Amino acid sequence: MTLNIGLLLFPDVQQLDLTGPYEVLAGLPGAQMHLVAAEAGPVRASTGLTLTATTDYASCPQLDILCVPGGAGIAALMRDATVLDFLRRQAPGARYVTSVCTGALVLGAAGLLRGKRATTHWNAHHLLAPLGAIPVQARVVRDGNLFTGGGVTAGIDFALTLVAEIAGPEAAQSIQLGLEYAPAPPFEAGSPETAPPAILAGVRDKTAANRKAREALVAEVAKGLGL
Amino acid sequence: MTLNIGLLLFPDVQQLDLTGPYEVLAGLPGAQMHLVAAEAGPVRASTGLTLTATTDYASCPQLDILCVPGGAGIAALMRDATVLDFLRRQAPGARYVTSVCTGALVLGAAGLLRGKRATTHWNAHHLLAPLGAIPVQARVVRDGNLFTGGGVTAGIDFALTLVAEIAGPEAAQSIQLGLEYAPAPPFEAGSPETAPPAILAGVRDKTAANRKAREALVAEVAKGLGL
Repeated sequence: MTLNIGLLLFPDVQQLDLTGPYEVLAGLPGAQMHLVAAEAGPVRASTGLTLTATTDYASCPQLDILCVPGGAGIAALMRDATVLDFLRRQAPGARYVTSVCTGALVLGAAGLLRGKRATTHWNAHHLLAPLGAIPVQARVVRDGNLFTGGGVTAGIDFALTLVAEIAGPEAAQSIQLGLEYAPAPPFEAGSPETAPPAILAGVRDKTAANRKAREALVAEVAKGLGL
Repeated sequence: MTLNIGLLLFPDVQQLDLTGPYEVLAGLPGAQMHLVAAEAGPVRASTGLTLTATTDYASCPQLDILCVPGGAGIAALMRDATVLDFLRRQAPGARYVTSVCTGALVLGAAGLLRGKRATTHWNAHHLLAPLGAIPVQARVVRDGNLFTGGGVTAGIDFALTLVAEIAGPEAAQSIQLGLEYAPAPPFEAGSPETAPPAILAGVRDKTAANRKAREALVAEVAKGLGL
């Protein structure tokens, strides 16, 4: 049985938000992968890596798994009626509605997080509540058929969790072994709680302007949603 | 100062071998990323994801960091004189010669692992010695300016290790925090030592034909190298 799995692809996507889960989900029995964009063809990620969209919003079949990755490019998506309509049209027929990293904010802009427990990148976590979500601090959060992952690399943990849900723990474990996913980070700086304070302060400083712009955008979007 | 970072891109690459380290290394100050292939343009990974090569072997500038990812497509690379010549031409001028996953076997086929400590994917680890390397069981192995990573997701740990070496631990920690790399796999099946025996047996069975073909290829290549 075919399992249609679609990830949104857009300019300035954070490519690892997409490529991490892609590699895991492609191992699901019957997986038919789709990268959905404004039009089929090349799309440039924020680091310059260029991926190829396989379909556009109008031509994409009903997806079994709908996944929105994050990145700098979400700001444009949150105001893009075509994208938001696509998400609202797909969500009711999808078995799973999902996001990785700040992709959650796009689901929020489509009104799909209202009253739902969700997570996102630590640097955007305060933007879940204004979009009507119930923020949860966890690497992977499930609320019914909504699965959200934390920042970037959390997409791998998210995808393994979803594979276990769909195809069982053995399928997830086989994929994990194939990907040799026995992580051993050389430092313990991966979360605000464990990073050295100076590192956290540095990253917060460097992203301050972007965070401020996102806060204003979320306020505007939330107003439009009547939140 | 520009840091030219080049990753090999080839048909049937395991895309996460490439995209994981790419996301980390792109955060290095001065990073100029290159995806090097037979020709510039789209290249299909084993799961169908299509990435875009930025340059070809002839046009690629001297790289500071040369990285070979792995995947099913390495079999063709190990017999491709253009690729092996490229690696032999680049290696002496590169600050770092590196691989992720079975990309190590391509370095081996170019004669670049002779007498060097190295690692690769657990399912190909026995193929390092025939190529003249000193096999080491570790997620990231350094021997002078040669850095090799284990299977697929080890590429993230490898790249953070390399960033720390080049730009210092604070730079690596900042990137790690930005990527929220505080992994929390839902299972402990990521290595042959920790995977349930039935899972390991299943993956070994499923990959038996491919492993056998690789063993024959490595034997042939080793003979050609006079090993």
